[in-house]
Amino acid sequence: MAGTITIALDAMGGDYGPSVVVPAAALAYKKNPKIHFLFYGDQKQIQHYMDKHPELRVVSDIHHTDKVISNDEKPSVALRSGKGSSMRLAIDAVKSGEAGGVVSAGNTGALMATSKMVLKCLPGIHRPAIASIFPTKRDEIVMLDLGANLTCDAEVLTQFAVLGAVYARAVKGMRTPTVGLLNVGSEDMKGPEGLRLAASILSSVTFPGRYFGFVEGNDITEGGVDVVVTDGFTGNVALKVAEGVGSMSSHFLKEALTSSFLSKIGALLSMKALKRLKSRVDARVYNGGMFLGLNGICVKSHGGMDAFGFSQAILVAANLIENDYNKKVANEIEQVMSQESFITSVSSLSMDGQ
Amino acid sequence: MAGTITIALDAMGGDYGPSVVVPAAALAYKKNPKIHFLFYGDQKQIQHYMDKHPELRVVSDIHHTDKVISNDEKPSVALRSGKGSSMRLAIDAVKSGEAGGVVSAGNTGALMATSKMVLKCLPGIHRPAIASIFPTKRDEIVMLDLGANLTCDAEVLTQFAVLGAVYARAVKGMRTPTVGLLNVGSEDMKGPEGLRLAASILSSVTFPGRYFGFVEGNDITEGGVDVVVTDGFTGNVALKVAEGVGSMSSHFLKEALTSSFLSKIGALLSMKALKRLKSRVDARVYNGGMFLGLNGICVKSHGGMDAFGFSQAILVAANLIENDYNKKVANEIEQVMSQESFITSVSSLSMDGQ
Repeated sequence: MAGTITIALDAMGGDYGPSVVVPAAALAYKKNPKIHFLFYGDQKQIQHYMDKHPELRVVSDIHHTDKVISNDEKPSVALRSGKGSSMRLAIDAVKSGEAGGVVSAGNTGALMATSKMVLKCLPGIHRPAIASIFPTKRDEIVMLDLGANLTCDAEVLTQFAVLGAVYARAVKGMRTPTVGLLNVGSEDMKGPEGLRLAASILSSVTFPGRYFGFVEGNDITEGGVDVVVTDGFTGNVALKVAEGVGSMSSHFLKEALTSSFLSKIGALLSMKALKRLKSRVDARVYNGGMFLGLNGICVKSHGGMDAFGFSQAILVAANLIENDYNKKVANEIEQVMSQESFITSVSSLSMDGQ
Repeated sequence: MAGTITIALDAMGGDYGPSVVVPAAALAYKKNPKIHFLFYGDQKQIQHYMDKHPELRVVSDIHHTDKVISNDEKPSVALRSGKGSSMRLAIDAVKSGEAGGVVSAGNTGALMATSKMVLKCLPGIHRPAIASIFPTKRDEIVMLDLGANLTCDAEVLTQFAVLGAVYARAVKGMRTPTVGLLNVGSEDMKGPEGLRLAASILSSVTFPGRYFGFVEGNDITEGGVDVVVTDGFTGNVALKVAEGVGSMSSHFLKEALTSSFLSKIGALLSMKALKRLKSRVDARVYNGGMFLGLNGICVKSHGGMDAFGFSQAILVAANLIENDYNKKVANEIEQVMSQESFITSVSSLSMDGQ
């Protein structure tokens, strides 16, 4: 149907399966009525929850399977024996073109390994990255890689910069997004060699953004750049440290505001403001790890999300599809990699083994 | 004098020089009257601020120098031409035994490079690390390396575990501190090779703590382990991300509580509780990056700290000196490194080049 966005859902993934995935789909559909759904998983369970959402029934197909990839399955095992599982079938639907994208709250390693194998990378892309949106003091930013690749050489980091910049343009509507490389200092000579090489490539090539320079950990939340690029090890630690400090801050705030009668009255009076504060740093709002660089849209929801959180991940996938993200990336990557300055830089470092 | 703790102060380091360093010394002296001070820097300026603290005059010597290492000086230049500077003279005082330790708010790279060159590493220690105390939901923890070494092999990470565990015992009085290695997952097979090797060494050797396993970024603030060990690149990013998220949280909270008349009244009633909250996450309380593993105590204060913040760094140094930290580390390192299981593990990995 013209203008329809079809999303394949791994209904069995995550801690709560269809009890979250189905109402999440209903929520997402309410916000974006162009979305149609392909559910993969236990027909009876899915049907049970869908009975409460008749409006969803009309725009959904249910494909039954008993098979589920568990959360503790090793990615290599999931690859070999995952055929016919709810996750695999949902990814297959993207491969075959039945769906424009897939959303799963299942095993991250299995989802990445399977979608890499089934969907493959976009032409020219060496490795996919996990990207996500973060709140900052100013606007939201996008950061990648959050864990797909433990180490990344300069060429891969450069590609990530393009993946992030195209996202900021295509989905966030920015004209010239600024891109920063995460480092331990902002001076040019700081940091490991691979990072410095990536900086020199990004300074010399034309890409759909502007290279800002190195940024430090505390710059991320200042919102000084629109895209933060890092390797998957550092990005994963940074993401989780941010989650941890956020959680500690609310923990301390709650303790403080319930510590005395007076502070409780004060909190009551500030309730509306505090609720708005909570929504600003609500992890559910920022749910949806985008696997960028694959030949198909794939979004990972946090396993413990509720229906609202999972619905956000669906909307993230819908946004990528609706804005033709992958087509735009493929174009831009080709243009960046065919530039003389890119080819010279990369060939000069190919012997460094970094 | 028996029981005296002598600390050499780089009076010119940091953004504010003697205007902060002198009152900071007065504050620290108030809390720990065993401390005596050797000030290095502009005699006139130091004297000017000391006139307001006659009690300090009695326990202080001022050593004049005009020379200051600037904040943007490259470490290599500071090494070559830093002789006679306030920072260098303060470090020299530790080397000569006149002082038990040095505190500086100056250029971090220059301080690390100079103290490494002048003081050298403790016997058996390959590389010094920067360590700091962090607040968590439970008790405070110590984390290292925060930026001295961009990459660290398994042997160095193992030594850092010992440096951290001895700190937790000697200064924090813990009997068997738990040590975690920062990684992107808690499963044994996760992460880069060097980390997995460090995990296997720490699992097999006897050291002054208990190896807990891998911890993730969000585990740090949960306080599940007493010591978190990581390489200097990751540690530096983690530290700064934590600072950034903390700053964003207070920024959002302030915005929320001043957003309406009602919320302002609420904040007023909760004032006492909010002040206590602020003190719990006050960066000044946790000021003092310890350069562990050197043959002398060296503590780095944040350059922008006020007198209270700098005084905390002085107290950190005093604690290390008073508790004989370096002597204890030297003993423990020797014991760990002479163990059969340590020698076997390290020699088996020496060919991996990791």
